Amino acid sequence: MKAFETLKNKANLLRKWSMISTTEAGSGHPTSCLSAADITATLFDKYFTYDTADPLNNYNDHFVLSKGHAAPLLYALFGVSGAYPLEELKTLRKFGSRFQGHPVPAFAYAEAATGSLGQGLSVGAGLALAAKREGLPSRTFVLTGDGELAEGQIWEATNFASHEKLDNLVAILDINRLAQSQATMFGHHIEEYVRRFEAFGFEVTAIDGHNFEEIDQALQKAVSNTNGKPTAIVAKTIKGKGISFLEDKDGWHGKALKKDDLQKALAELGNVDDQLRFDLKKPAGKLMPQSVDKQYKTAIDFEKDKTYATREVFGEVLADLVKQDKNIYVLDGDVMNSTFTEYAKKEVPERFVECYIAEQNMVSVAAGLSRLGRVPFAATFGAFFTRAADQVRMARVSEAHIKFAGSHVGVSIGEDGPSQMALEDIAMFGAWPDVVVLQPADAWSAAQLVPKMITHPGMVYMRTLRPKTNLLYSKNDTFDIGGSRVLRQSDHDELTVAATGITVFEALKAADELEKENIHIRVLDCYSIHPIDAEALKASLHATRQNMLITVEDHFAHGGMGDFAATALAGTGAEVIKMAVTAISQSGTMNELLHAAGIDAGHIAQKVREYCAVTA
Amino acid sequence: MKAFETLKNKANLLRKWSMISTTEAGSGHPTSCLSAADITATLFDKYFTYDTADPLNNYNDHFVLSKGHAAPLLYALFGVSGAYPLEELKTLRKFGSRFQGHPVPAFAYAEAATGSLGQGLSVGAGLALAAKREGLPSRTFVLTGDGELAEGQIWEATNFASHEKLDNLVAILDINRLAQSQATMFGHHIEEYVRRFEAFGFEVTAIDGHNFEEIDQALQKAVSNTNGKPTAIVAKTIKGKGISFLEDKDGWHGKALKKDDLQKALAELGNVDDQLRFDLKKPAGKLMPQSVDKQYKTAIDFEKDKTYATREVFGEVLADLVKQDKNIYVLDGDVMNSTFTEYAKKEVPERFVECYIAEQNMVSVAAGLSRLGRVPFAATFGAFFTRAADQVRMARVSEAHIKFAGSHVGVSIGEDGPSQMALEDIAMFGAWPDVVVLQPADAWSAAQLVPKMITHPGMVYMRTLRPKTNLLYSKNDTFDIGGSRVLRQSDHDELTVAATGITVFEALKAADELEKENIHIRVLDCYSIHPIDAEALKASLHATRQNMLITVEDHFAHGGMGDFAATALAGTGAEVIKMAVTAISQSGTMNELLHAAGIDAGHIAQKVREYCAVTA
Repeated sequence: MKAFETLKNKANLLRKWSMISTTEAGSGHPTSCLSAADITATLFDKYFTYDTADPLNNYNDHFVLSKGHAAPLLYALFGVSGAYPLEELKTLRKFGSRFQGHPVPAFAYAEAATGSLGQGLSVGAGLALAAKREGLPSRTFVLTGDGELAEGQIWEATNFASHEKLDNLVAILDINRLAQSQATMFGHHIEEYVRRFEAFGFEVTAIDGHNFEEIDQALQKAVSNTNGKPTAIVAKTIKGKGISFLEDKDGWHGKALKKDDLQKALAELGNVDDQLRFDLKKPAGKLMPQSVDKQYKTAIDFEKDKTYATREVFGEVLADLVKQDKNIYVLDGDVMNSTFTEYAKKEVPERFVECYIAEQNMVSVAAGLSRLGRVPFAATFGAFFTRAADQVRMARVSEAHIKFAGSHVGVSIGEDGPSQMALEDIAMFGAWPDVVVLQPADAWSAAQLVPKMITHPGMVYMRTLRPKTNLLYSKNDTFDIGGSRVLRQSDHDELTVAATGITVFEALKAADELEKENIHIRVLDCYSIHPIDAEALKASLHATRQNMLITVEDHFAHGGMGDFAATALAGTGAEVIKMAVTAISQSGTMNELLHAAGIDAGHIAQKVREYCAVTA
Repeated sequence: MKAFETLKNKANLLRKWSMISTTEAGSGHPTSCLSAADITATLFDKYFTYDTADPLNNYNDHFVLSKGHAAPLLYALFGVSGAYPLEELKTLRKFGSRFQGHPVPAFAYAEAATGSLGQGLSVGAGLALAAKREGLPSRTFVLTGDGELAEGQIWEATNFASHEKLDNLVAILDINRLAQSQATMFGHHIEEYVRRFEAFGFEVTAIDGHNFEEIDQALQKAVSNTNGKPTAIVAKTIKGKGISFLEDKDGWHGKALKKDDLQKALAELGNVDDQLRFDLKKPAGKLMPQSVDKQYKTAIDFEKDKTYATREVFGEVLADLVKQDKNIYVLDGDVMNSTFTEYAKKEVPERFVECYIAEQNMVSVAAGLSRLGRVPFAATFGAFFTRAADQVRMARVSEAHIKFAGSHVGVSIGEDGPSQMALEDIAMFGAWPDVVVLQPADAWSAAQLVPKMITHPGMVYMRTLRPKTNLLYSKNDTFDIGGSRVLRQSDHDELTVAATGITVFEALKAADELEKENIHIRVLDCYSIHPIDAEALKASLHATRQNMLITVEDHFAHGGMGDFAATALAGTGAEVIKMAVTAISQSGTMNELLHAAGIDAGHIAQKVREYCAVTA
């Protein structure tokens, strides 16, 4: 057919530039681009609605390249869509280019940074979910490889997508048989994928991924689908398709063609017109991400002599805020009665997203929501964010402004034991550049910091406490990202103890104990762990007799608040002594476990005494 | 039937003690135990081969409690197996008790620490895999909840188990409808699970989990299975089964009964004889974990003027070692041609385990192998261990002695960009107590450290480099965990630069550059990052003019080698200045990216000059 003749040429134009750009770069994955050229050319030419002038328009369709190593194909697709001259693709993988080895936000048309496999379908589910819930006409297309279908997150995403009835989501599976080091588990047995996706509730069509008529029919069916089921197009393809010496050959994964091989390959493609362009449809409307309303109110109040768990305060305040800003979404991993996101669910069920016990999908769905300008809060036990560490990592690369709340941190959770204790979460979230890490110790500071998680333009992680704690502050105190509070001071303080979260109370008890011995210490509440309040630390050490800081935290010793404090004080001549958890904990009462970990009031007092003795 | 009458009583004995122990503790998950009492009682009484005197005997069957919150049931099961007096269960969740909130190694009969959900089937697959490959007669039974079937790792494990034809593996799915905060995604629609497990290649039997005849037939069928398919028994159960006011009720997850409710519950159970015991079958043989052979040899040699990638050296040495010790298993995530575990595969395919792109399952399978006394090496890109952070965390709690090798670390990988760069791996592995972190910079140190990963009795992570590097050492140099090497020194050194991995070469170049300006620095290769060589650092700073350490690493600034060094020098009055990666990187050449990150020779030299100027 004539129509498919032009399409075939456009697909070959994608092939041509996928090969030219990778040869120019001297590295990359051209054969992984070639297998998907026919199907993506058809998608863009006939079914994709997109305004390249406004990549963030919520009315655009979305194309998520889950197989991120096929980045040259993505770059060629938007080049042939007219977004930039194809010639620019020759900067692929070069320092400073927007065309990096795998998609990142420098490329404005990437819906997410990909390259760690198996995450794209969840991101796509996030994009599709917002469209579904808010009545936007967009469709989301996710191109996955076959190797990445081994990642468990794929099956979290499929369960989620079918449970949420995302019939505006289309997964295109590029089953080209060969992964990086060998054939995939199932090779070209596409029936294995058909069976799995059907079992997980998808509408599945199996096609020859190089037969334009089959491709066209499958896409036509997918975009007309309104039956409540997401679509999977299982496309049997040939890795390296179109170039005889690359087709279905081992040993060509992640290899650019040498110049002379490139010439042979281009000769096989024949005369391909560089002027061909896709005929993108314009979106029917425009909705751009909105700026965040900075005037959140909360009516929450606390009674002076009562105790409150910051996790519950977090939930209550969030429920207030979610009513005031329709951009906020709240995501739960079946612990809403522990993190208290159940309060937000009660207020605004239409923006509450139950992800069940599937933290990886939860985080990547949040990344998809963030791409649309929504403000996603993702909450679970702090320990269980380790389950999604790679997804948080990639969300950070994506510049997704997710707000995380991790409850049940530290040994202070007590009887449940080590599997439920977050003791590496500060190390993890703190390692990624510019991720804010907060840990309010009382209700007032928690209440004030929740809205600041939203107004901060970036990723934020809040540690919330399981046990109830006393109030330290009052209604009119203010708390800011990067701040701290002095809770105990005198004109003759020996040294400074910086605590955070539950250990603030231990430090105060230690101060009381030492006071009786006429030893005075300054106590700081470092509720902002990253950035830490460097100025306050320096000022505090300056004002005490010894230029010494003792940090105390309910977290492992490495990578915690103590390391942030030490870094902040580097070059000042200060001594920093870290008190933290140094062994795997166990079951017990909070007090038993704080004591066993050596971070309770008694241990703090003893440590202070040691250093007073040394320098007395 | 009479037989089932006794069984029913034994099941009720499990119920009784699950409730007594949790009430005594004041917390826990009795209702999650009750739903699985009938099926586990049948398993232990009729089909379980186990010698409670030797929990580590490889001839034992294995029971993995994936739903770790049902720990009281596990404790009751082995109590009724005669392993200890039931009365001891009253110490549940108390400080110092082996009966912790979730299973940990203090309980000798736990095959793995569980409590983070969805990991048990992978652990079980590891146990079953070793039995299969080594011809051991054991069977592995894994009890999962239904909530945890939402975790993607479950589907990684099912793919793996069916691909490896583990017909000695039996997954028992306790479908009791209710998860923590609400009903599961599928409630009592057990056909949803049947369809999924069938699609993933399991032999599936659906039963009423409280009908002893159906339970018995299903287990009988499972233990006779030799058709190459793993079994899934999908058991429809009632949460709280057996106690009228708990059965199928919302709001009872994770709640112990109050004393008076317990009395009512026990009254409903009737007279249950505490003397009842399971009739465990004795294993037919005995094979205990063997101690590690400490005399590994490697014939590897390197030519003086050539360059070598430590990742390839790792692979070559591992291939040597794997021939010398039949306990070693090598696990790959479809990157064996990048991590060079392909060499080990060539030597000993029977102990090479291809896990495809499913890192979570890979790590938990390794934990299973470790439980049997095998020495599992798990290798992938360093960045992709973040995908399995929670599994590593739980493996650490399990005291699984896994040896990890992460390749492609830092910005030095170049063109592939940030998604492939491990820049938080030291923070992650370093946070967990006592995990050894190594990063050899050249071939000789890499070759010597690989066997030391085995002989070290614990978890070890080795960072390996993508680029080839020059030799720094020679054949007779020795390298130990906790060691370091001085690479440049004089009698009039200004200060010390501690580097690790690729930055060692940058530090040496900086030293050369500074030498020309008559500024002398001491350069240390901290190939052992954790533990770091505190003594050498102190000695070095003692010997230089300034009490100052500059650390340089291809890792994010927080949680890296610099923080370990600073901690090691706490209390010495030393200044520690960290040079590290502080922003998300991009594509480019290695040199461009090291420069952009501020960790190349030029930046190091400049930093040294600054501090010399300050103190001159």
